Amino acid sequence: MSNEKAIGVFDSGVGGLTVLSSLLQLLPGEKYVYFGDTARVPYGNKTPETIIHYTRQIVEFLAGKNIKALVVACNTVSSTGLEVIRDMIDIPVFEVITPPARAALQASKNKKIGVIGTRRTITSEVYQKVLTRGDSSVKVYACSTPLFVPLVEENILGTALTRQVIKYYLEDWKNNIDTLLLGCTHYPLLVPDFRSYFGRDLHIIDSAHQVAQEVHFFMKKKNMRRINRSGNVQYYISDPAGEFLYFARKILKHDISKYCARLDLAEKE
Amino acid sequence: MSNEKAIGVFDSGVGGLTVLSSLLQLLPGEKYVYFGDTARVPYGNKTPETIIHYTRQIVEFLAGKNIKALVVACNTVSSTGLEVIRDMIDIPVFEVITPPARAALQASKNKKIGVIGTRRTITSEVYQKVLTRGDSSVKVYACSTPLFVPLVEENILGTALTRQVIKYYLEDWKNNIDTLLLGCTHYPLLVPDFRSYFGRDLHIIDSAHQVAQEVHFFMKKKNMRRINRSGNVQYYISDPAGEFLYFARKILKHDISKYCARLDLAEKE
Repeated sequence: MSNEKAIGVFDSGVGGLTVLSSLLQLLPGEKYVYFGDTARVPYGNKTPETIIHYTRQIVEFLAGKNIKALVVACNTVSSTGLEVIRDMIDIPVFEVITPPARAALQASKNKKIGVIGTRRTITSEVYQKVLTRGDSSVKVYACSTPLFVPLVEENILGTALTRQVIKYYLEDWKNNIDTLLLGCTHYPLLVPDFRSYFGRDLHIIDSAHQVAQEVHFFMKKKNMRRINRSGNVQYYISDPAGEFLYFARKILKHDISKYCARLDLAEKE
Repeated sequence: MSNEKAIGVFDSGVGGLTVLSSLLQLLPGEKYVYFGDTARVPYGNKTPETIIHYTRQIVEFLAGKNIKALVVACNTVSSTGLEVIRDMIDIPVFEVITPPARAALQASKNKKIGVIGTRRTITSEVYQKVLTRGDSSVKVYACSTPLFVPLVEENILGTALTRQVIKYYLEDWKNNIDTLLLGCTHYPLLVPDFRSYFGRDLHIIDSAHQVAQEVHFFMKKKNMRRINRSGNVQYYISDPAGEFLYFARKILKHDISKYCARLDLAEKE
């Protein structure tokens, strides 16, 4: 039965684990296949051509895993490679742009929404377009914040330096936006720091949580869920650097090393 | 004549351009072939296995360019893949570890030397070993400083934030070391910030300059120079993201775009 099939999830590296973590909370009975392209991370500073080439390789691999749905847990790919993916496979494809944009529009009272992401995501203006599509009075403040990824990856969280970096990028927004959209799946780990800098009243929209809700809602509506079963995850990464397992433990709260295999997509060609 | 052959230079990305820039100053009449693996940068957080795999691909490519010498302008590869390279080719291979280590030992009076680099370079302990090999009383302070690369790549130089990041990593060394060895070819762009934080008395050893001196000295001694000729550089990069050309202009002081070609090593396999 097709409900028995797995859900494919991929990211350029560890960030997509925040999406997987939200999926596991909402849809714990599913089988998941996760691919993290840790050998070629980050994608955010690469050209669309390169990102699409990598995306094709990953989608081909996951399509071979007999999946019923695909979650693009990477903002850079969501903003660059989505049409290519939809041309390649004929299953529901979820991305991390539209669900959080919709949630941001619902949350904001003053219609001033800040969006942060990689340089590629921000210059693609994908969030800016989605946020103003239905209401041109929405004001979008966009900023590429490339230092946030290494802050997260180096676990420099909750420090004076974390605050300095936030201030460096976002100081001008402090008395302005009422909603902050996290346009990169790494950023949920910075939420306590954003909260501490901006104060309690800011709405923080976490794309990981929003996309998981979207998948959950869709699966339920289409009767595609795997019900009353215990789920599992198979992890594939292109480079088994220690950081992946470290983050997996941090984000998913358990050790995944025995479910984790190395896969070099470039070598397969 | 073999003197007419080119010198191969490679790095994971833009950092090696600091080495190339020093080479162009000391050996302006040479032909150079530069490869920057901009599609897979950074190497510093990848496993040795992956780094060696990438190194093999690059050396194979450069060996096909009929070169008389090879400069590994990447500290991560210098500390991880050198034996593999020397097994692959039978020409002089220069690396960015030994020349700056020797210069640091010559410069230091108090024998307290700080070394900074990527996580892979620092955990390999290659500098620590080279610096203490001849004199066990040398005290090496080593710190991996992964945020410095995005600071340089984002051009966040000379700002309060730059100072904060330097303080975050190196505050404990301030009244301690008299010599700082820059174990990553990106870091020369941070020299004014290091100088401003540590004061004028600190000896700063720039690996780019030291390795260029080594190549110059060797070429002269072996009569391998291309004399009274005008030189040139052919650039190959694996991803033509705008940042490479931006940094090339910044480091080399001119526009290289017309000498620059895209080469996807993974696709060639």
